[in-house]
Amino acid sequence: MEREPTRVMVAVNESTIKGNPHPSISSKRAFEWTLEKMVRSNTSDFKILLLHVHVVDEDGFDEVDSIYASPDDFKDMRESNKAKGLHLLEFFVRKCHEIGVSCEAWIKKGDPKDVICQEVSRVRPDLLVLGSRGLGRFQKVFVGTVSGFCVKHAECPVLTIKRNADETPSDLADD
Amino acid sequence: MEREPTRVMVAVNESTIKGNPHPSISSKRAFEWTLEKMVRSNTSDFKILLLHVHVVDEDGFDEVDSIYASPDDFKDMRESNKAKGLHLLEFFVRKCHEIGVSCEAWIKKGDPKDVICQEVSRVRPDLLVLGSRGLGRFQKVFVGTVSGFCVKHAECPVLTIKRNADETPSDLADD
Repeated sequence: MEREPTRVMVAVNESTIKGNPHPSISSKRAFEWTLEKMVRSNTSDFKILLLHVHVVDEDGFDEVDSIYASPDDFKDMRESNKAKGLHLLEFFVRKCHEIGVSCEAWIKKGDPKDVICQEVSRVRPDLLVLGSRGLGRFQKVFVGTVSGFCVKHAECPVLTIKRNADETPSDLADD
Repeated sequence: MEREPTRVMVAVNESTIKGNPHPSISSKRAFEWTLEKMVRSNTSDFKILLLHVHVVDEDGFDEVDSIYASPDDFKDMRESNKAKGLHLLEFFVRKCHEIGVSCEAWIKKGDPKDVICQEVSRVRPDLLVLGSRGLGRFQKVFVGTVSGFCVKHAECPVLTIKRNADETPSDLADD
């Protein structure tokens, strides 16, 4: 079939538990579900668009807006940037490369929920995939939820994937 | 690939505008998106599970719990039931049959949001797909939203698909 691939944007972020370079439990789970249950072996029918929103801190960060589509693209990155999202994207790009599904990955700065919705409006994916911590109402008051906001406001279909019970850390707000 | 197909439950309901036999705008859109963007031509990799929740009224309704998997299964249904969800399921089963993706369809009675979550727990699909009217906060107070409830409570990943702007009726609560 010669149709355009289905363009699936997956928002990924860093774990709050294990240190910067590791993906969060929920974004890793959402990504793996997408490959296993939707892409399956039909790799030419899908394109994965990996977005990491970097929450801005004081130090400079100049890799924003670069696009990464293969593991080789990460070779020249400076050591100082490895801890800032590039290492995270490398994990996901490498997985896509291994199974043979095409992908693009990029980083934006700002508030994740706002930036994800802005990027959906700009990039026009067919689908936005988000991991979710599956928090209750009480917990949400304190930590906020990106997925709840994006289900309401993103201008495309939104797939939310909760963590498995056996992956959930003792502090539910961790991820 | 010999793996089990991905089992996608799609909750469908009747239009509030055009009379009983027609599917709602949002459930038709969710179903068509699923076939076009996820199943694509990989029909053997997916199985569609069509659930219609019949909101109970005074008259009897005895086709609940029957399972329909091909257009032929609808031939013997009584006229009196055509207006009560069977005709609705026939629309979706026929479409699945046309493109060659396997499906099952069934009807349950009750409050849609509760019954959908119960059926997810019972049937254990890989994914729940829901159409959404895309209502704002003020409108939700009066009409409620099934999708918002299910995103929070269903024990599987949930994909919500809003209506296209050009399909939205003048009264947003209609569907």
